[in-house]
Amino acid sequence: MLCVSSCFRATEEEQQAQSKKALKKQQKEAEKAAKKAEKQAKLVSVSFPDRELVRVQDLTPEKADQLIWLRARVHTSRAKGKQCFLVLRQQQFNVQALVAVGDRASKQMVKFAANITKESIIDVEASVRKVEQKIESCSQQDVELHVERIFVISQAEPRLPLQLEDAVRPDGEGEEEGRATVNQDTKLDNRVIDLRTTTSQAIFRLQSGVCQLFRDTLTQKGFVEIQTPKIISAASEGGANVFTVSYFKTSAYLAQSPQLYKQMCICADFDKVFCVGPVFRAEDSNTHRHLTEFVGLDIEMAFNYHYHEVIDSITDTMVQIFKGLRDNFQTEIQTVNKQFPSEPFKFLEPTLRLEYTEGVAMLREAGVEMGDEDDLSTPNEKLLGRLVKEKYDTDFYVLDKYPLAVRPFYTMPDPNNAKYSNSYDMFMRGEEILSGAQRIHDAQLLTERATHHQIDLEKIKSYIDSFRFGAPPHGGGGIGLERVCMLYLGLHNVRQTSMFPRDPKRLTP
Amino acid sequence: MLCVSSCFRATEEEQQAQSKKALKKQQKEAEKAAKKAEKQAKLVSVSFPDRELVRVQDLTPEKADQLIWLRARVHTSRAKGKQCFLVLRQQQFNVQALVAVGDRASKQMVKFAANITKESIIDVEASVRKVEQKIESCSQQDVELHVERIFVISQAEPRLPLQLEDAVRPDGEGEEEGRATVNQDTKLDNRVIDLRTTTSQAIFRLQSGVCQLFRDTLTQKGFVEIQTPKIISAASEGGANVFTVSYFKTSAYLAQSPQLYKQMCICADFDKVFCVGPVFRAEDSNTHRHLTEFVGLDIEMAFNYHYHEVIDSITDTMVQIFKGLRDNFQTEIQTVNKQFPSEPFKFLEPTLRLEYTEGVAMLREAGVEMGDEDDLSTPNEKLLGRLVKEKYDTDFYVLDKYPLAVRPFYTMPDPNNAKYSNSYDMFMRGEEILSGAQRIHDAQLLTERATHHQIDLEKIKSYIDSFRFGAPPHGGGGIGLERVCMLYLGLHNVRQTSMFPRDPKRLTP
Repeated sequence: MLCVSSCFRATEEEQQAQSKKALKKQQKEAEKAAKKAEKQAKLVSVSFPDRELVRVQDLTPEKADQLIWLRARVHTSRAKGKQCFLVLRQQQFNVQALVAVGDRASKQMVKFAANITKESIIDVEASVRKVEQKIESCSQQDVELHVERIFVISQAEPRLPLQLEDAVRPDGEGEEEGRATVNQDTKLDNRVIDLRTTTSQAIFRLQSGVCQLFRDTLTQKGFVEIQTPKIISAASEGGANVFTVSYFKTSAYLAQSPQLYKQMCICADFDKVFCVGPVFRAEDSNTHRHLTEFVGLDIEMAFNYHYHEVIDSITDTMVQIFKGLRDNFQTEIQTVNKQFPSEPFKFLEPTLRLEYTEGVAMLREAGVEMGDEDDLSTPNEKLLGRLVKEKYDTDFYVLDKYPLAVRPFYTMPDPNNAKYSNSYDMFMRGEEILSGAQRIHDAQLLTERATHHQIDLEKIKSYIDSFRFGAPPHGGGGIGLERVCMLYLGLHNVRQTSMFPRDPKRLTP
Repeated sequence: MLCVSSCFRATEEEQQAQSKKALKKQQKEAEKAAKKAEKQAKLVSVSFPDRELVRVQDLTPEKADQLIWLRARVHTSRAKGKQCFLVLRQQQFNVQALVAVGDRASKQMVKFAANITKESIIDVEASVRKVEQKIESCSQQDVELHVERIFVISQAEPRLPLQLEDAVRPDGEGEEEGRATVNQDTKLDNRVIDLRTTTSQAIFRLQSGVCQLFRDTLTQKGFVEIQTPKIISAASEGGANVFTVSYFKTSAYLAQSPQLYKQMCICADFDKVFCVGPVFRAEDSNTHRHLTEFVGLDIEMAFNYHYHEVIDSITDTMVQIFKGLRDNFQTEIQTVNKQFPSEPFKFLEPTLRLEYTEGVAMLREAGVEMGDEDDLSTPNEKLLGRLVKEKYDTDFYVLDKYPLAVRPFYTMPDPNNAKYSNSYDMFMRGEEILSGAQRIHDAQLLTERATHHQIDLEKIKSYIDSFRFGAPPHGGGGIGLERVCMLYLGLHNVRQTSMFPRDPKRLTP
């Protein structure tokens, strides 16, 4: 039997024919009873086709000889005489299916099957059969499907802009046989196809896990989730690298971080807060690690006696994320590693914390020339990461007590040494993933520091005013989600861990 | 003893004096041992003052006669001869504290305590005492504190822009005695103070709960969280009401919803996705329910046979949210009700679903004149909500099968009646909180409908192209977080449930 439904349309089965007689009888019922009946009728869901769709991952020998329905994509198709072999795919799982001329399928049906374009979505009715020899090329290696009916649910155009098998091929592999890999721009231009690969599916399922682990850990620690505005009236962090928005008859800006707002929440007694949301940087940087829009995982908390309480909370949160990924996302990690091999991510418990001066000393020992109050260049950050890995065997550490001069105006100076500050960065595999600090919670000191940084006080008035009516000592930091995923997985470009990346040259799709 | 630390600075205790002799001895140790010692030293946290701060909510008779430390705000202060009564507050909890001339406190200390400004943050050492008569004005009614030491951690300026007790006073109460309430603009202008009230604390803790319940329910249902870009290259939904952003040498827009991106994720095999993030509407609407930036809780999913599978998933998610709030946020609900009384929120299980034509019939029966294909006006939505409440006793229902003419171009027409569409809105207390539909998943039909809506095809090319390579039937919807919180709590202005609301006239704080 051969069935094609070229464009899927759901059928409505909820309208039941009711004879006039029955209707009349019903109308005669007491008003209250009718009302009740009507109420109940409204609450009953419509009935759907009585057909269960099996998941590919559930196709195991236990299902042998069962007749099942399945919806999946045509991953590959290969006709061979009176047979057509299909590989059917659902996300990272796939199974072999055979359409063969015989009792159940006609010659026409085999021809029809052979002509279904790759990536089309089809429904098949098929019996599950155990196979004698494992099917190495599929995730479901012990069974294949013998197809009896096929419906095309959604047909793909014949010419795909890229081939999935090319998009997941490790760099260099198959070069001799002339097999293609797909360059990054082609992948991103056709992101909807590229996201279907096992690698992309694994990356973004892991990313979803990072967000969940971040929030669950902080919720358990008593943090409250907040939502902060992205359209703001003043470029809060000095005015550079900010996007301008037309806002009715005036102009506004896109927030470069939720920092000022999360601090205001601390001043408003929320004690410990976090937020997950987009942050915007109008930086014309075309590097492997910069995006103009990325997802910030932000933390801010009041502390009791020392800003290291904040560092401890953040590092413990990161450790919980690393552990959760290690324990629950091994399949995803290994899937990504197949295409992009990397060493497992190493971390210590508790987290290693070095002072900035120690980091500078390690770099100088390795031949780097730099002043005490110089900021770390990206190459030096990476070098320091390698030195720390060698010495302490960790891919994650904190660098504490940055020079005051290289930090934003709201950073608390070190009370013991005016050259330094109570601020820190955190690194994964030698790249910065978090920047944070104790913040100034005294309006007068904040005013002095803003003036020193030549910031227009009028524009940050409501921010400074937040500290006039009692503010607890507090600190926090902002984490870049895409960087965490990139570096945890040992990838080399942040565009791989942003679903629809934005950079100075890319605004689509 | 009287101690004042006018500006809190943490002390560093990690630097331990080491005698030269000891250092020399250490240098003599084997290199490996030294390395190991250094490693361990780095991993040890600094020691903080050995002083536990008790939480106000834990001050119960079990702690009677204990000497404790506490950090809290001065909520009120009242000097009376040789005594000063303070009420100390942490979020929604407060306790009475007494500073009295005697063994433990001098006359000067009582005077000092009396002069501490309201909203200042102080540390006190005090002994906990059971009281014979309940202190009705405090959350901790069975104990009071006898203060022995006071440190001022952060001093509030003496003139508060608003009084917390005025900001939580129900409308009309105390009018006769000339007691003030605070108008909304004053509250929002001084949001950091206003957010400290018990009402605000309860609202935003409940809002945090809504987000968590939304995500947890969907994660359990197998949904994957996605992050979608907010800066987009084309005004996706027709071009009206969109904010423009300067993007380097070109222009871009702020996404009015993540809808096109979540659909692309469905085309990219993520099957079921959700996202939580800001959405932007450049609508010059100054109403109680419109914001120019709000938080969208978005859902999109592939379905098997009928778009009512999508409605069922969304309504079940809403029901789980309502149940979670009812079961876990009674304190918050009752706190808000004290200032803003409202009826408990009612819902049915499963959720009531009415067809648009039925809604129109109910309105006509109530005297409203409207055409079959007219959209519902806001007053008519509210009226219909009242009629539905009367008839079905629910504050939450779905209105299904909207006229095609009033829905966006990507809405799937009803296959049985071209005048209508497979689309729906959901309502809480008669106001819309969600708009959703089955989407067109066929590139050709989508092109036709976009052309019909006079949308520039070139600008939505990458969106339409997403459906060319196999797309499953799918649908979804977008929920407004602030509206859900407002309507669940029976509030009357969406600015009450947005921490830092944005409307055409408000961009600060």
